[in-house]
Amino acid sequence: MEHSSFKTAGLFGKYADSSMADTLARLARHLLGRKIKVVIESSTAELITKAGFDLDQYSTEALDVIGQHIDVGIVIGGDGTFLNIARNLAADQVPLIGVNLGRVGFLADISVDDMIPEINRILDGDHETERRSLLHAEVMRSGKIIHAAKAFNDVIINKGELARLIEFETFIDGEFVNSMRADGIIVATPTGSTAYALSAGGPILHPALEAIELVPICPHTLSDRPIVVNNQCVVEIVMTSLSNQHAYLTLDGQAMFSLQDHDHIFVRRNPELITLLRPSGRNHYSVLRAKLHWGEKL
Amino acid sequence: MEHSSFKTAGLFGKYADSSMADTLARLARHLLGRKIKVVIESSTAELITKAGFDLDQYSTEALDVIGQHIDVGIVIGGDGTFLNIARNLAADQVPLIGVNLGRVGFLADISVDDMIPEINRILDGDHETERRSLLHAEVMRSGKIIHAAKAFNDVIINKGELARLIEFETFIDGEFVNSMRADGIIVATPTGSTAYALSAGGPILHPALEAIELVPICPHTLSDRPIVVNNQCVVEIVMTSLSNQHAYLTLDGQAMFSLQDHDHIFVRRNPELITLLRPSGRNHYSVLRAKLHWGEKL
Amino acid sequence: MEHSSFKTAGLFGKYADSSMADTLARLARHLLGRKIKVVIESSTAELITKAGFDLDQYSTEALDVIGQHIDVGIVIGGDGTFLNIARNLAADQVPLIGVNLGRVGFLADISVDDMIPEINRILDGDHETERRSLLHAEVMRSGKIIHAAKAFNDVIINKGELARLIEFETFIDGEFVNSMRADGIIVATPTGSTAYALSAGGPILHPALEAIELVPICPHTLSDRPIVVNNQCVVEIVMTSLSNQHAYLTLDGQAMFSLQDHDHIFVRRNPELITLLRPSGRNHYSVLRAKLHWGEKL
Amino acid sequence: MEHSSFKTAGLFGKYADSSMADTLARLARHLLGRKIKVVIESSTAELITKAGFDLDQYSTEALDVIGQHIDVGIVIGGDGTFLNIARNLAADQVPLIGVNLGRVGFLADISVDDMIPEINRILDGDHETERRSLLHAEVMRSGKIIHAAKAFNDVIINKGELARLIEFETFIDGEFVNSMRADGIIVATPTGSTAYALSAGGPILHPALEAIELVPICPHTLSDRPIVVNNQCVVEIVMTSLSNQHAYLTLDGQAMFSLQDHDHIFVRRNPELITLLRPSGRNHYSVLRAKLHWGEKL
Repeated sequence: MEHSSFKTAGLFGKYADSSMADTLARLARHLLGRKIKVVIESSTAELITKAGFDLDQYSTEALDVIGQHIDVGIVIGGDGTFLNIARNLAADQVPLIGVNLGRVGFLADISVDDMIPEINRILDGDHETERRSLLHAEVMRSGKIIHAAKAFNDVIINKGELARLIEFETFIDGEFVNSMRADGIIVATPTGSTAYALSAGGPILHPALEAIELVPICPHTLSDRPIVVNNQCVVEIVMTSLSNQHAYLTLDGQAMFSLQDHDHIFVRRNPELITLLRPSGRNHYSVLRAKLHWGEKL
Repeated sequence: MEHSSFKTAGLFGKYADSSMADTLARLARHLLGRKIKVVIESSTAELITKAGFDLDQYSTEALDVIGQHIDVGIVIGGDGTFLNIARNLAADQVPLIGVNLGRVGFLADISVDDMIPEINRILDGDHETERRSLLHAEVMRSGKIIHAAKAFNDVIINKGELARLIEFETFIDGEFVNSMRADGIIVATPTGSTAYALSAGGPILHPALEAIELVPICPHTLSDRPIVVNNQCVVEIVMTSLSNQHAYLTLDGQAMFSLQDHDHIFVRRNPELITLLRPSGRNHYSVLRAKLHWGEKL
Repeated sequence: MEHSSFKTAGLFGKYADSSMADTLARLARHLLGRKIKVVIESSTAELITKAGFDLDQYSTEALDVIGQHIDVGIVIGGDGTFLNIARNLAADQVPLIGVNLGRVGFLADISVDDMIPEINRILDGDHETERRSLLHAEVMRSGKIIHAAKAFNDVIINKGELARLIEFETFIDGEFVNSMRADGIIVATPTGSTAYALSAGGPILHPALEAIELVPICPHTLSDRPIVVNNQCVVEIVMTSLSNQHAYLTLDGQAMFSLQDHDHIFVRRNPELITLLRPSGRNHYSVLRAKLHWGEKL
Repeated sequence: MEHSSFKTAGLFGKYADSSMADTLARLARHLLGRKIKVVIESSTAELITKAGFDLDQYSTEALDVIGQHIDVGIVIGGDGTFLNIARNLAADQVPLIGVNLGRVGFLADISVDDMIPEINRILDGDHETERRSLLHAEVMRSGKIIHAAKAFNDVIINKGELARLIEFETFIDGEFVNSMRADGIIVATPTGSTAYALSAGGPILHPALEAIELVPICPHTLSDRPIVVNNQCVVEIVMTSLSNQHAYLTLDGQAMFSLQDHDHIFVRRNPELITLLRPSGRNHYSVLRAKLHWGEKL
């Protein structure tokens, strides 16, 4: 039965939340029992040790290098934790599994109660592989790239704390789309289409769709509607002279960069993708039905 | 200069509207001057003849066979006329050019004023080729396909004249999405995304995107939002027992078919695509900016 | 304790649904025990008799006259049944109580389980009185009123079964608002603002607000947004010459009238209001929270 | 003909914009010719003097006291300038006239070209009087009111520069409505319903409607829709413990106050109203049609 191709699993817990300690320690023991080497991400290990668990049998590695030591990553937390680990491991192309401490999410879609049997199924090869896109954003100021970062959900350009509009122009593959005054604009992956972009009025993109969506946030012109384009497009947002330096760039709602007038923000698909592993036979829409209170079968 | 690869052009005028007669006759003479054979669609020819023009130099063919006799079609009318001709010529894969009698449209995007120089540029090879998807819809009742038709913009399932909801289930590639009570649902191509689907709250899909969108019409559940999926998906709508036979299928807003409870409607991409020819260097978004009053460059 | 001011109660059951027979018979006996005379609406009585209940102790009256014989009405059904009875009893100004056979509704907001104690509280005077507006719609053709009817939720002008736009002009108190091409338009009371108008994008109006809302249905112009005006305004919709006679007038989704080009539809507040009786201390928003899955207290 | 009841007019120019100097000086001379005393707001006067105009014939007063010296105010600028002056003069109940330096606005609705004849008509008594509501907002922290201010358009509670949701509970007249996670919430007057609230999805309220609207900004729960209530209601927003102090209160997009967890924000109608004077016979909807590209008469 133990014909799994995974030799070394990395474990990642929710940041600064020791409530996952017991679950993670239980999973580590289980993997060891399956003769899989376990590497725990350093800050996770520290939390678990403080919570009184003995990790002598496992090695630990820092987040920035752990990707080179493992051939599968298991994240215990919520979708937010998953996003963060996925962005950090993107360059190493490690496939990821998500266990959810709370209600099942879009990415961390295995519940704690089903954790052991579901992960067994995946390790036994009874899984589906899903490839998800990341975005890569760059800020160009006076002709130089001064900031670059990745996003799994979305790249957001939005106004600062004062409730005033910003003004910008959008180009797709160098072609002028429109100028807009708005609270901001979201460039989202299919993964991000069920996050903030949905609240701002964007459509739901199927994860397998090779697309990104541009969703205006509270645009002044009511006909400024969401646009969906191929994910090989380069999106360029140009801050005009009227935006007056109160605009910010945020990625997955976690990083923030202050923009100035005349900045150009380029968003394109990141060359590396994220690989998710899920138990076979999952209905993609079941999480959507649960979260959005959609109608079940009649 | 006359190195055009087009030997025979078909001409199509707006249905039952003789206001295009003069423009079409002028275009026919011009093509003849370029040594291009001209074939005029029969009902168009009849209208023009009634309007007093002499068509002796041109042959005529009926709509259902003309596609076999021409290697390019030029439609003079609006987007509605273009939709209709394109659906009818889809099987013959004839590339199409659209001349607009009124304001420039999304499909018929050459104005009458620019007709001769723009068509010259296209015939001279200075053009871009755009491929657009069609949808193919089938209605299955008691296990048999009882109706099938093509749509360029959209396949719409909607309630009848009494302002009551219909109820249906949606499946994508056999996977259950949700059940819904609504005025109806739109399955639209990227071309159709700027038509009725936009009024119902759908996003704008770039024409080159390999996608279709599902847009609920006034859904009872407020979180029933537009979904965008790959255009290789099969969409299946199942009328439930509560819809009570007051539902209709319409395609491009022009054909209509009465649905019954338990009908299954299958929508998939039509195997043949439509080919549009446009003068090179067109900005795709300029028509959108004009029609939607979007902001111009600052 | 029996100092109720109500001497005679009318009972109304859901149309053609004998599942309410037992509940209604139980309520009738209870009222009799409280020395309240019971009058059962004729078609309801017929259903209950067929279901095997003996109604010898109660009188019956037809729907069109029962209002003159009772000083309170109790409706057993859902919001749809309540709407229907309320419209019919509007002229007699009889206060109404709603018992819901299913999940608690906006109007029929007493559950079957709580029926006896809640109705006791109301009869004992421990109740709140809520006044709701009705709409009165008239169709004028060639200068003559050819149709008139009342609506509790909404007056809807919408297209027929073919998925095509209708075109109309809107005036408020004689002042031109705009012309529109759309699937239709809804004129709704605050009561109706949580019904169809909500699906079409309208806001939720508090029941005590002296207002009506105009909500376009899938308008071609994306900036055609809902408008809220004082309920003393006269709304006038004029069907233009392009609508081509495929438009319909529906009231509360139950009556239907075929419109023609150049028809004028006038909508104003009905002079008589509906009076609802509810147990004291109800939180108005609790039904909304339950139905719309709004966030509860944190 | 000179039977105007206005003896003293206050003049107000757009802040820090000397382009209005010539127009304002021209208006001042014209009023003087009509034997109306002219008082110029101090900072406006300073700008005009710098621009080379001689103001010896007019007196000047500071913004905070000028309201006690005039019986009509004339604002030359845009809607933003008008909002600002109106808030400042609310306590003195001075009626206001708005002249627009750019395109005609909702408040400043007299164009510079028509200024002299239109103001003459108003001064001659040929005018309509419109009363508009203001909002009064208070922030209560630990049981004490620590901030209070007025708004003409809207009171906005929104997140700070980091693109993260805030969380709050809403109460209307002490009754719990819902809890929400969102970018924020707008409480708007009818005047404000065509400003930011419209971009966030709110309906258009007629200026004469005795109502305020609550419009969520990008709410996480898609069914958190705009609510319209009577303007005598007290709206209370309670910041919960999760909002983590990155929330701000802004009024008319011009003032800003930093909020903390557990703050209570109370919004009610300001006791004093604003009085606008307009030439008789204005169509209220014409500005909306122009700004929103609504359909004109057919």
